[in-house]
Amino acid sequence: MVRIGIDIGGTGIQMGVVDDAGHILTRSAVTTRTDIPFSEQIAVMANCCKDMLKEGNYSLLDVASIGAGVPGVGDAKTGEVVLCTNLGWHHVPFREEFRKHLDKPIFVDNDANVAALAESVAGVSAGTFSSVFITLGTGVGSGIILGGRIWSGAHGAGGELGHAILELDGEPCSCGNHGCLERYCSATAIIRMAREQIGRHPESAIMQACQGDPAKINAKIIIDAARDADPLAVKVFRRYVTCLGQAIANVCNILDPEVIVLGGGVSKAGAFLLDAVREEYVKYILFKDLEHARVELARLGPDAGIIGAAMLSSANPG
Amino acid sequence: MVRIGIDIGGTGIQMGVVDDAGHILTRSAVTTRTDIPFSEQIAVMANCCKDMLKEGNYSLLDVASIGAGVPGVGDAKTGEVVLCTNLGWHHVPFREEFRKHLDKPIFVDNDANVAALAESVAGVSAGTFSSVFITLGTGVGSGIILGGRIWSGAHGAGGELGHAILELDGEPCSCGNHGCLERYCSATAIIRMAREQIGRHPESAIMQACQGDPAKINAKIIIDAARDADPLAVKVFRRYVTCLGQAIANVCNILDPEVIVLGGGVSKAGAFLLDAVREEYVKYILFKDLEHARVELARLGPDAGIIGAAMLSSANPG
Repeated sequence: MVRIGIDIGGTGIQMGVVDDAGHILTRSAVTTRTDIPFSEQIAVMANCCKDMLKEGNYSLLDVASIGAGVPGVGDAKTGEVVLCTNLGWHHVPFREEFRKHLDKPIFVDNDANVAALAESVAGVSAGTFSSVFITLGTGVGSGIILGGRIWSGAHGAGGELGHAILELDGEPCSCGNHGCLERYCSATAIIRMAREQIGRHPESAIMQACQGDPAKINAKIIIDAARDADPLAVKVFRRYVTCLGQAIANVCNILDPEVIVLGGGVSKAGAFLLDAVREEYVKYILFKDLEHARVELARLGPDAGIIGAAMLSSANPG
Repeated sequence: MVRIGIDIGGTGIQMGVVDDAGHILTRSAVTTRTDIPFSEQIAVMANCCKDMLKEGNYSLLDVASIGAGVPGVGDAKTGEVVLCTNLGWHHVPFREEFRKHLDKPIFVDNDANVAALAESVAGVSAGTFSSVFITLGTGVGSGIILGGRIWSGAHGAGGELGHAILELDGEPCSCGNHGCLERYCSATAIIRMAREQIGRHPESAIMQACQGDPAKINAKIIIDAARDADPLAVKVFRRYVTCLGQAIANVCNILDPEVIVLGGGVSKAGAFLLDAVREEYVKYILFKDLEHARVELARLGPDAGIIGAAMLSSANPG
């Protein structure tokens, strides 16, 4: 038996046929369309699934289940997508609608939860009982895995580490609050930190890399410059690592998982980021003579979305 | 069958015989002694247990298990107390030593975890799958209950919400870090907030209640004055509630339990605190149109220590 995993993004929808070990056997993709009604969006996805099966020489009987990860809130119990701003979905019956096209067990969950699950099945946290995945992108997403299952809370609203407050009366956040963790630990955050200071440091290598236009600064430019020991970039990077280290220590002090997995755009900085973070977070752990969570880089990259979505059926037995 | 629960505190050790519903059938107590070696401390406790059983007309055959809550870190798996500063314990074999006196299944865990368990079995969170207990005392302790079991992490270091960072570069904490949550949400915190401002407000009712000596200010004085609409007390109380509201919302955004239970000294303020907190924390919840955790006051008071300790055997099956 195989499973289908669908990774629904704001611009594209990736899907794949996945085996029990988490290998993608064949894949396909469609462009995300927001100009058609929900039922047609689902029809497009389902037809793409059917074509993918045909091309891979799979029969419908080979498919055990279909799972989807959405950039929003999915209700794992009802199969409803509660909220998905990018797709324009608000309380849509994802499972019910999809089943009209493919009558299989259908699962849906948040994309960070799905990536967390993928890493815990086929990635860097495989074999652990407890792990927390943190995605460092435009925002900060997270997923909690306990005993092979996603813990997204009693009401499906958990795992939103990015909107836990890390600084009282801190930076304003798009969610309406102040001081949310993602204002300090996302790619957006490190870019803001650099922009705040670049005016006083025109000599910085960051300025050269962005051709004198601070609007062109991105996380890679800053981290590459820090790697080359540019003083401003090093200062910004150090501050970012301090914030991320404290965020990771919070997860250790509250949840104490076996492993904390870093994914998303900023994690592409690789060992340069990982080494700095590993040195930093242990400073803020309360019980320093107890063992604590390992911090690792995600291993599956963008494939985590397809693999984790396919695995949702194991994470939601019965 | 009955179970024995032991609540080990810095000054006294309370114990009781508890039935399966969490009722204390008979109780006893000894003074905490730190002037004798560990093995003698355990002998004193065990003898007190034996006397209590005799007085209650219980035979040793009636006792299913013995559990203890300690103000420190207990390793639920090995029965070792990893750290308990008040008692002077560092990596002591609690279970092994206790069994020399009473050969029963012996369990040990942190006191906030134990209180969390008690409330989830016989208190305000009874019948829920997930709950987080937060004790607002000199510091801030917490315990996480998932599926009837204590989740204290992969290494027994979790549930320490009090030392999650709530303010980057914030107030110095006794743990060595800055900005720990307990610096903003404990009884100590509200006292500090009042003391910082009392010099500029000699007219405040707080000053009268503490007879002009700021060293005598306690949480009750501040909260009573806030209840009576003293302007300084109201300002301090509002700030405290804002901090606590954000701390509670962090628990909702990360863990999203069914219920969050407030215990400890500050919670004695009752409905006056609860109403204010309930109004505040919902402001910081990310998904405002999803259901979220109820916030409740602990119901078992100081008995939670005995009841929860007795219940440790159910929370650690096999």
